[in-house]
This record gives sequence, structure tokens and C-alpha cells, in this order.
Amino acid sequence: MTITKAAAVGGGVIGAGWVARLLLNGIDVSIFDPDPEASRKVSEVMKGARRAYKRMLPDGLPKEGKLTFAKTIAEAVTDADLIQESVPERLDLKHKVLAEIDLHAPANAIVGSSTSGIKPSDMQVAMKKHPERLVVAHPFNPVYLLPIVEIVGGAQTFPEAIEVAKEIYASIGMKPVVIRKEIEAFVGDRLLEAAWREALWLIKDGICSVEELDDIMRYGFGLRWAQMGMFQVYRVAGGEAGMRHFMAQFGPCLKWPWTKLMDVPEFNDELVDLIASQSDDQSAQWSIRELEKIRDENLVGIMDVLSKTNKGKGWGAGALHKDYVKRLGKLAAAKKPVSKAAAKAKAAKPVKKKAKKA
Amino acid sequence: MTITKAAAVGGGVIGAGWVARLLLNGIDVSIFDPDPEASRKVSEVMKGARRAYKRMLPDGLPKEGKLTFAKTIAEAVTDADLIQESVPERLDLKHKVLAEIDLHAPANAIVGSSTSGIKPSDMQVAMKKHPERLVVAHPFNPVYLLPIVEIVGGAQTFPEAIEVAKEIYASIGMKPVVIRKEIEAFVGDRLLEAAWREALWLIKDGICSVEELDDIMRYGFGLRWAQMGMFQVYRVAGGEAGMRHFMAQFGPCLKWPWTKLMDVPEFNDELVDLIASQSDDQSAQWSIRELEKIRDENLVGIMDVLSKTNKGKGWGAGALHKDYVKRLGKLAAAKKPVSKAAAKAKAAKPVKKKAKKA
Repeated sequence: MTITKAAAVGGGVIGAGWVARLLLNGIDVSIFDPDPEASRKVSEVMKGARRAYKRMLPDGLPKEGKLTFAKTIAEAVTDADLIQESVPERLDLKHKVLAEIDLHAPANAIVGSSTSGIKPSDMQVAMKKHPERLVVAHPFNPVYLLPIVEIVGGAQTFPEAIEVAKEIYASIGMKPVVIRKEIEAFVGDRLLEAAWREALWLIKDGICSVEELDDIMRYGFGLRWAQMGMFQVYRVAGGEAGMRHFMAQFGPCLKWPWTKLMDVPEFNDELVDLIASQSDDQSAQWSIRELEKIRDENLVGIMDVLSKTNKGKGWGAGALHKDYVKRLGKLAAAKKPVSKAAAKAKAAKPVKKKAKKA
Repeated sequence: MTITKAAAVGGGVIGAGWVARLLLNGIDVSIFDPDPEASRKVSEVMKGARRAYKRMLPDGLPKEGKLTFAKTIAEAVTDADLIQESVPERLDLKHKVLAEIDLHAPANAIVGSSTSGIKPSDMQVAMKKHPERLVVAHPFNPVYLLPIVEIVGGAQTFPEAIEVAKEIYASIGMKPVVIRKEIEAFVGDRLLEAAWREALWLIKDGICSVEELDDIMRYGFGLRWAQMGMFQVYRVAGGEAGMRHFMAQFGPCLKWPWTKLMDVPEFNDELVDLIASQSDDQSAQWSIRELEKIRDENLVGIMDVLSKTNKGKGWGAGALHKDYVKRLGKLAAAKKPVSKAAAKAKAAKPVKKKAKKA
């Protein structure tokens, strides 16, 4: 299932990331965002995304889709195959926006919400016409590069809508993972929240600085998680004795006083100041744009190198990346106007005489 | 500060990983492990480590250090510059082993404990002679490839011991991060425990399978954490508004019911069976040895690609990797016996007559 026209409602970091992925796949996008700065922000993200895709496709990108700024939600969604909602995380706002989308979108269009935490059941109640086509389609930043998208259906979502959504997101190079039961924050953000909460304690208690914590991740387990997840890493760590052995050994640790389990640190000005100033110490030497550029270069590099391992078959995100780049390369080749020389050669080719056949 | 002789007490997955890193850096190692299988296990790890280092150094490895199996702790540690303790995580056992090490090790040797959770203050009480030279030096698996090592001093540890330990671990290609205050499980394992606990809930509650959870990591935030940590990633995600904006937006989420905060899942047979069988579904197609091989290939590939980004200066683990490979390459070149042709050419060179000088 491929699509030719999409709508984006909301053009912040996430919304603009979707727009970039869609346009770079040759899909036309109509966007609605009331922010007067929306156009500038989207074009900034596009600039970064184009640069990243050029690393993936040095011989040229596919013809970009056409971007239109709509004046209303109705105008944006009216003839879209996919509507991606990425407005701020407030249920009242989601209700208002989804009701409007529902009213004007084609009946068979898929409505994907980028929410990172709200349950689809709680959102689709606002859709009076076709709540059955709402799915959560939760991506990770930068949306134009990271392949993962969590797909979550609500109480009213049709199984067919989930199937179609999976196909659509896969068709733009993503890895859809369908979450089996609807819970707040789904899977990725549950894990991130748990780690984030622990990290705040570590900073607040002066155990380490934000830079030291980041280094422990990026010189350590982050390098593992880029290619295997937590369970597969532990399976390997269990050695010849395997997963059961690993768990027998490490399960009891859960009862040890090893994490700040029972409480959440108070998120006061003092903590915000501490983290913001440590973050400046770590990163103020680069602008956000420079960091984005480095991040994207690293992401493309990592996925590219993973596309060549495992006896050339690729591994994890690398195997997917390999297929994605190949498909985009074909799209790019298809757009190329026939060169003058090739056109001449073609013209010079003698046309087979029909008479011969007779 | 470089060393020429090290001792390893304990040769499990972590101990053998240390042995491999040390030997491949040309350092002699004397190991004590009462397990009759120890020699086989260490040589298995060495095989994997050599293969990984050959990827880093296709032109040849440095001359390996000499490995000796000692019959007692005393024999292993007697003339070592560094003693690395990697016995199981039981305080009584740590006490017994550290007391023995302390008794026989040179007074100025550094004693590094690989414990992933026990406080150095609680361990060094068993060292009657020189408790001041004990540091926790907590690595991550595979020790021969992942650069991070958390350094933690206890109440009796001298600041000089921490400085020397930093230099020693850096000299074998590692990234030492000194933890500012002593707490159980330090920093890395606090974060891992928090994520692991949340993951157990997600599996137990049937929200996702272990494979789906792993995919959400390795197609998603794992790719970010391989190169930037949590705080730097969020700084970038905050966009032009920066870290303070990010926190203002996401701080309140901590109060939402988004994680299984209050309790630990009961670690019963049912949960162990569920995870072990899902892990088989995910990974039983590969042996542990094959998975290790793929993991190491991916790790070397990721570090190698990160050594080339950021205008060729390298980034994070990649920048360190670049220096490490360069240093090992020099070591390797130094060991090379003069080739026959070069020896001939040298022999043919006319010796300057001293007479001329006169």
C-alpha cells in the first residue's frame, strides 16, 4: 500500500519531521499549522533532512513531493490518504483537532496521531464519523531518519485500519511495531520515562553530571542498544547458559535498593537550573543546528554500517535501511529525464517494420 | 601510565573480557579462577576478541601478552601492577578474595573491582594492609570492545589511586568516568535497572513481546544513545528553545501515570518462563556464539563509522576508537620482525668507514 497525498496537522519538531520523510518519499503533503513561524521551521527541518538523505543517496534524491500550506484543517485533509496529527499533548486540543479532521477527511483515509502518551481510545471519542480509522502512530525524533513507529489501536479502531497503517508506514521506510494492549505512553516512552526519572535523581543527588551520565550511555550500553535490544543483549551476556541463567542471576537484584523506586524527584527551578547549566557546559560549544547535523550524520553512518554486517545481509535497522535506500534509489532513477544522448540513440533506432511480421 | 603485568581474579564473562583486552594490548596476565572450565572459557572469549580486533586492525595485531593460569590468588597477584577482581556479586566472597589479594599484591598495585553494584567502602574493610588502593572499575560486556569503565572510590580510597586507575584504564583504550559519590549500582546499572524493571512489567502485562520491545529500542532510541546520551538528545529535541524548554514541556509528564513506578514485578517461574520462551522465539535461530560474533561485528562497525564523522575528527566512542586503533597499530608495527628483503637491503648497505672520519 503506497500513498500519494498526505496531510500534516501540526508542524513542530515531530510534525515537520513527518513532513520531511513524506516529501522525500515523493509524497505530496498539505500542512496546517497556525504558528506564523511554521513555514520557516518546516523549511529548517527540510534542509537537515535533505542533507541527511543526500548522504544516503549520493547519486541523487527522488523527486520531492509538493508541500502546500493550508489555511484550515479542512483544506489540508480534504483529499489526503493519510492524515498525521502532531499537535501538543493536551487531550482537549487533540479532541478539537481530531473532530475537525474526522469531519473533512475522506472516509477511507487513515488518521495517525503522533501522541507519545495518550491512549487512542481516549482520543477517538471525539471522532463522530469514523473513529475506526484512528491509530496512534508514535515516531521518534528525528522522524525522517529513525525508522521505529509504534502503532496502537483504540477500542473503536478496526483491525483493518491497523493493517493499512502498518503498510503505509512501512512504505515510507519505517518499522511499524503494533503494541498489543493499549496503555499510556506505550512501550518506548515507558522505558524512556523510567530511565529519565532515574537520571534526574542521579543529577539531583550529585552522583554525576549530565555529561558524565551521557558518556556512560554512549561509550557503554548505548552502543549495544543501537543493534540489539535489552533482552537479546542479556541473552548473549548469559553466555552458554542462556536467558534462563541470566535471569536466575539478575532477577533478585530487583529487590535490592538499587534504584530510586518509590518517588519522583520534585521538578523545581533548582533542578531545572542545575540540568540546564550542566547541559550548557556539555554542549554550548555547538549550536542546536550543528548538533542536529552531527546527530544525523552519525545516524546515517550507523544505519549504513549496520546494512553491511551479518554476512552482507544487514542487521536490525541496517537491514531495513538497506531496502529503504535501494527503493529510494530506484525512485530517484525513475525521475531522471532521459538524457539527450540516450534520447538520440533511441530516435536513431530503426523501427521494426510491421510488414516483416506479415 | 602504562602497565606490563596484570592479574585477573575470576574468569567469567567479565573477567575473561578483561583478560582479552589486557592481552590484546600486549600486557601479560596471570589469572586465578578455581573453575576447572576456566581455561576453555577464557580461550573462547579470546577467540571472539581476536576476531573483533582483527576487524579493527586488518594489518595485524600487537604481540599478545602472555597468559598464565595461577594456582592461587597469591601466585596470580604477586608482581602485578593492576589486579582486576571479577568474582560473583556476594559481599562475603568479595571480602575473602580482596583480603587475599591485599595480602599478596605489591603495595603500589591498583586493585580494581568489577562489581556492578557493591560500594567500594563496603568491600575495602576486608583489606587490612592497603585498602586505599581499591577502586571499583565497573566495565560493560563485552569488556574487550565497550570503552566505558565506571571508577568509584570508597571512604578509604586515596584520590591518587583514582588518578592512577584512570590512567591505567585509559592506557588500554577505555573511557574512565569517575562517579562523584558512592552509591550502590553507580550510574550505568541504575539506568539499566530502571529500564529493566519497566521492561519486565511490559512483558508480564502482555503489552509487547521481548522481540517487539527490543525492536523499539534498536530501530529507535538505541540508535540515538550510541552517539549522544539522554540529555544531549533532549537538548537537541528541545530545538531552538533548548534544554530549559524541553524540561518545561516534559517535566510534568513525570507526575503522569506513565510508568509502573510503585512496585517491582514478582520474579516468579511464570515470568521467567514467559521471557525465556519469547527470547527463544526471537533468537534461537542463532547460537550464543553467533550472536556474539554479530554483536562484535556491529560494535566495531559502529565505532569505526563514528571515528570518521564530525569533520573526520570522530565523535564520542568513535573519537576514542580512532586513537585506540592508531595506538594498537603502532604497537603492532613495532613488533614486526624485519622482513627478509629489508634485512638484505640493510646488510648490503655499505658501512661507513670510520677511517673516513679520521
